[in-house]
Amino acid sequence: MRILDNIFSPEDLARLTVDDLKTLSSEVRREIVSLVSQNGGHLSSNLGSVESTIALLKVFGDKSNSIIWDVGHQCYTYKVLTGRKDRIHSLRKKGGLSGFTNPEESDYDFFKSGHAGNSISLAIGVSKFKKNFQKDGKVIVYIGDGSMTCGLSYEGLNNSYDASNLVIILNDNSMSISKNVGSISKYLSKIRTSNTYLSAKKITKKALGNLSFLGKSIENIFSKLNLKIRTFISKEGSFFENLGFRYYGPVDGHDISKMIQVMNIAKKADFPVLIHIVTEKGRGYSFAEKNPEKFHGISKFDIKNGVCQNKNEKTFSEVFGEFMCKCASKNKMIYAITAAMEKGTGLSKFAKKFPNQFSDVGIAESHAVSFAAGLSAVGYIPIFAVYSTFLQRSFDQLIHDVSMQNLKVVFAVDRAGFVGEDGESHQGIFDIAMFNSMPNVECYSPAFFDELESCLSIAISSKKSTCVRYPKGNELFKPNWINSEFKDFDFYGTNKDILLVTYGRIFSFASKILDDFPEKISILKLNRIIPIPEESVLRSCNFKKIIFFEESYKSGSVSEKFAYMLLINRFKGTFKSVSIKGFVKHASMFEQLKYSNLDYNGMLEIIDNL
Amino acid sequence: MRILDNIFSPEDLARLTVDDLKTLSSEVRREIVSLVSQNGGHLSSNLGSVESTIALLKVFGDKSNSIIWDVGHQCYTYKVLTGRKDRIHSLRKKGGLSGFTNPEESDYDFFKSGHAGNSISLAIGVSKFKKNFQKDGKVIVYIGDGSMTCGLSYEGLNNSYDASNLVIILNDNSMSISKNVGSISKYLSKIRTSNTYLSAKKITKKALGNLSFLGKSIENIFSKLNLKIRTFISKEGSFFENLGFRYYGPVDGHDISKMIQVMNIAKKADFPVLIHIVTEKGRGYSFAEKNPEKFHGISKFDIKNGVCQNKNEKTFSEVFGEFMCKCASKNKMIYAITAAMEKGTGLSKFAKKFPNQFSDVGIAESHAVSFAAGLSAVGYIPIFAVYSTFLQRSFDQLIHDVSMQNLKVVFAVDRAGFVGEDGESHQGIFDIAMFNSMPNVECYSPAFFDELESCLSIAISSKKSTCVRYPKGNELFKPNWINSEFKDFDFYGTNKDILLVTYGRIFSFASKILDDFPEKISILKLNRIIPIPEESVLRSCNFKKIIFFEESYKSGSVSEKFAYMLLINRFKGTFKSVSIKGFVKHASMFEQLKYSNLDYNGMLEIIDNL
Repeated sequence: MRILDNIFSPEDLARLTVDDLKTLSSEVRREIVSLVSQNGGHLSSNLGSVESTIALLKVFGDKSNSIIWDVGHQCYTYKVLTGRKDRIHSLRKKGGLSGFTNPEESDYDFFKSGHAGNSISLAIGVSKFKKNFQKDGKVIVYIGDGSMTCGLSYEGLNNSYDASNLVIILNDNSMSISKNVGSISKYLSKIRTSNTYLSAKKITKKALGNLSFLGKSIENIFSKLNLKIRTFISKEGSFFENLGFRYYGPVDGHDISKMIQVMNIAKKADFPVLIHIVTEKGRGYSFAEKNPEKFHGISKFDIKNGVCQNKNEKTFSEVFGEFMCKCASKNKMIYAITAAMEKGTGLSKFAKKFPNQFSDVGIAESHAVSFAAGLSAVGYIPIFAVYSTFLQRSFDQLIHDVSMQNLKVVFAVDRAGFVGEDGESHQGIFDIAMFNSMPNVECYSPAFFDELESCLSIAISSKKSTCVRYPKGNELFKPNWINSEFKDFDFYGTNKDILLVTYGRIFSFASKILDDFPEKISILKLNRIIPIPEESVLRSCNFKKIIFFEESYKSGSVSEKFAYMLLINRFKGTFKSVSIKGFVKHASMFEQLKYSNLDYNGMLEIIDNL
Repeated sequence: MRILDNIFSPEDLARLTVDDLKTLSSEVRREIVSLVSQNGGHLSSNLGSVESTIALLKVFGDKSNSIIWDVGHQCYTYKVLTGRKDRIHSLRKKGGLSGFTNPEESDYDFFKSGHAGNSISLAIGVSKFKKNFQKDGKVIVYIGDGSMTCGLSYEGLNNSYDASNLVIILNDNSMSISKNVGSISKYLSKIRTSNTYLSAKKITKKALGNLSFLGKSIENIFSKLNLKIRTFISKEGSFFENLGFRYYGPVDGHDISKMIQVMNIAKKADFPVLIHIVTEKGRGYSFAEKNPEKFHGISKFDIKNGVCQNKNEKTFSEVFGEFMCKCASKNKMIYAITAAMEKGTGLSKFAKKFPNQFSDVGIAESHAVSFAAGLSAVGYIPIFAVYSTFLQRSFDQLIHDVSMQNLKVVFAVDRAGFVGEDGESHQGIFDIAMFNSMPNVECYSPAFFDELESCLSIAISSKKSTCVRYPKGNELFKPNWINSEFKDFDFYGTNKDILLVTYGRIFSFASKILDDFPEKISILKLNRIIPIPEESVLRSCNFKKIIFFEESYKSGSVSEKFAYMLLINRFKGTFKSVSIKGFVKHASMFEQLKYSNLDYNGMLEIIDNL
């Protein structure tokens, strides 16, 4: 029988010795590898955080404390140990556990997570409440070093000065998804590799080794040891000390005993504390240790050889990356930017081939857009490749630094629409609303790989800022009757009454309906969605019924805009719009499309019930 | 004759001695006081930056360098000395110079400015270009310490590591608009008040005093002096050094000679440099020195006594602040947040009376919203009072930390609509598009003070997140026939054909039209604008012609949404929408309304031409 089998809540950790906890960590690690090999998910970061999560729950597991996860993709151990072990194999599946924290699942989760850098700010809110109402317990933030490249984290750190009940655990694995970038990363690396770190291990042992904190009262120990230990452990934490934190570290993030000791010290502090732990991404699974980026977010794979079992189909991201390489080889003014998503956006080859025309700015989407504006002002053609959901972090920069300046930036908006298993926080459903409310921008939505290339060509040669939005994964079914010349819009079909309007990948479903029932509908396929081509609206006015299907949040969408233009043009028929009604939970991408009536059957049903 | 009279471009500074430059600074200072006393504008910060701007132009004034201003409100000296002296008295007036930098005015201005924290990111873009194409010259950022509270600045600093041609001048006056907050501010203050600072003055003199950099070649001086001077000047710059900058400072920002010396050192550096200068806001005008916050942004005043000449009418902000005090005195769960706008948002009294229920988070709007979400999760009723234009910096936090979590936060959106003289970057015209694209939120738009109170009451007691948007300044004309009970919408008038739909302060113009021409129109006054009350649309469908006037950017607006709902409800008449077409330049608020056909005459003309 495993130790894990008897853990039903964090309280069950109390009776375990450090050796038991070590055994437990091996068991949890095996559980995670098995889980992710079946369901896909975030492997490397979860393997890296097993021991620190166990230490965290050993010290802070009781309900008086509030544990807040940054990004939350590294919470699998936490879920397993906070009463969700029996459901863990439903992770990321429809109706199952979320791949991120979620208060709907457990009251150990305080917030839904997914985006980086908000945890410290959220924690300060909780901290204020505890202080003002004299509540016991600490507010603990668990955050990766990748999130430290993010301005929001800094704003949180800068506002922590009176959060005396705040403990930040900085899990430093020297990576975001790709290798980390920026000065703060270099700074952390300097700490890790300094003599101070090497000797600190010994010194910490000397200072703390003969004291057992486990289960014993540690009254006054903190105050006696504080200054000494701080000085011992490191002189390198000045960045965080300058921001008002007491810095402890670096601590080996796979040494449960050490972490428990340091966390117990933090538990007694009456000022903001930052504990810097150093971990290895992919720890304990050799394939992930060797290639942590591949195993950051991965689909189903074979445990024995680490080989992914998906069919390895070509993706829009890859087509984008290859096309960018082609462009840059002819034009030295092309400049590609990613915010910590070099591989995900398909830019790895570009980064290697054109290092002077490429920047990975870390998880800093606001900076990425202002930086692009700066490049544009001096003549570059900047292309910011970004997941739709993360571009939300640049709204003011889109307005103030690009649009208001009338500068030209290309936005390659990847993961637009449903993204499947990552769920609510990762759906790309608000980008159109953003671009719709931004003056001086055009937006294209390709349905197929060749159209993506056409759109990018237009974007690069246009004088205006242009967004090209494309989905996660591969292209769907492509009809053989599609016009070979890429235009702003196309009408297909012979029906004079019912017009189906759509754009992007779900055009494939519409085209299938036209193939199967040629008499039923005509189709308007929009390729330029902002601004909507006037002529497409005028011609649509001749139909009696118009149904608009789109893979975007309903409000601020293209269909709303289309309706507005129909009304202005005195359209007298009926109009119906089918779009995304709100946040959509994790499931497969096809399940999400089905749920929203945006797949073949859903469309057909709506047409038939008109 | 003044020295200033012979300065037509920065080159004219070359022949001036330090004593001449001192005289010049007095002349410029008099010019600025006179200018702002007439036109209104940013006084305190411009008086504080006179000497440093002169030093900056003396050292970096030639066109090979690019000078980028953060916020740009402190650029008056810069404008005067870069060929715009003759037009300076048109500042902030319709058709005149902008109160911020603007490339349309001068090629000494690289970007339009207005929002904080983007300058470093923009500069890195310019820096990359210069490096990749071997261009001479430096990229200089002039930034206030207030902007250092902003996450975007941090993202820029973190990405400066290879910007060896970047020089940041950090103008530290210990204030944003209000007194600065946060750890970074405490950190800077520690530097300023340390012994290092006091002795540094002397040491700098010793190290540099007998060398004249003015006009002479300074080859090799840097490399010889660098290490020594750095060590001399301060050991306190570790925060910036940790982020990869060479730190010089603190330097007295009113000592032209010292600044020229240090800037000349920076000019020769081949790594990123940060020069920390310490200045006094309001310097040289006693009233502003004593009360820098009052004179931060001020309207026309009497030079002799510093008394403002506006009629001191009550503002929406004041009504908001008073109402908040009333609420908090009855409810200890009320928590008010501002992002460096305590006075501007009317919260000064609240901050004094309820210090435990108030936070000024600095220029950190993203943090403010996530922090509010944290407060909300534990039971507080957080109210974030923020200017519409600055809330753009929180879009992702609105979606991810408030809406997706289904948490309740109140957004008191001040300066919604036109803001007058501050111009393009400060217009509050995108907030509606943001809230329209955010699930689970309601939005109210009061036209009058008592309605603001009603809206806030609704917002505070609602279970949903609620936005209340209200304009800068005072309420306009209020008709005596308005319904005393506050409802989601009201119809006024007896005309059955033509319906004028509007909301917010411009309802006053509509009401005047109804008073003057009772037979011409009926009015639908919307009070809840998100979601639009269904019944108001259904009743509107009975009219033949609908004209929607709104003080918001056209795309993503309420009128577009209204049109969509009309179409869905099979409205068969004509619809016209009059809203804001794009960025609107500085002028008086009434001129801006007129320009957009949103005042009495504009509305009337459009009705008559239907």
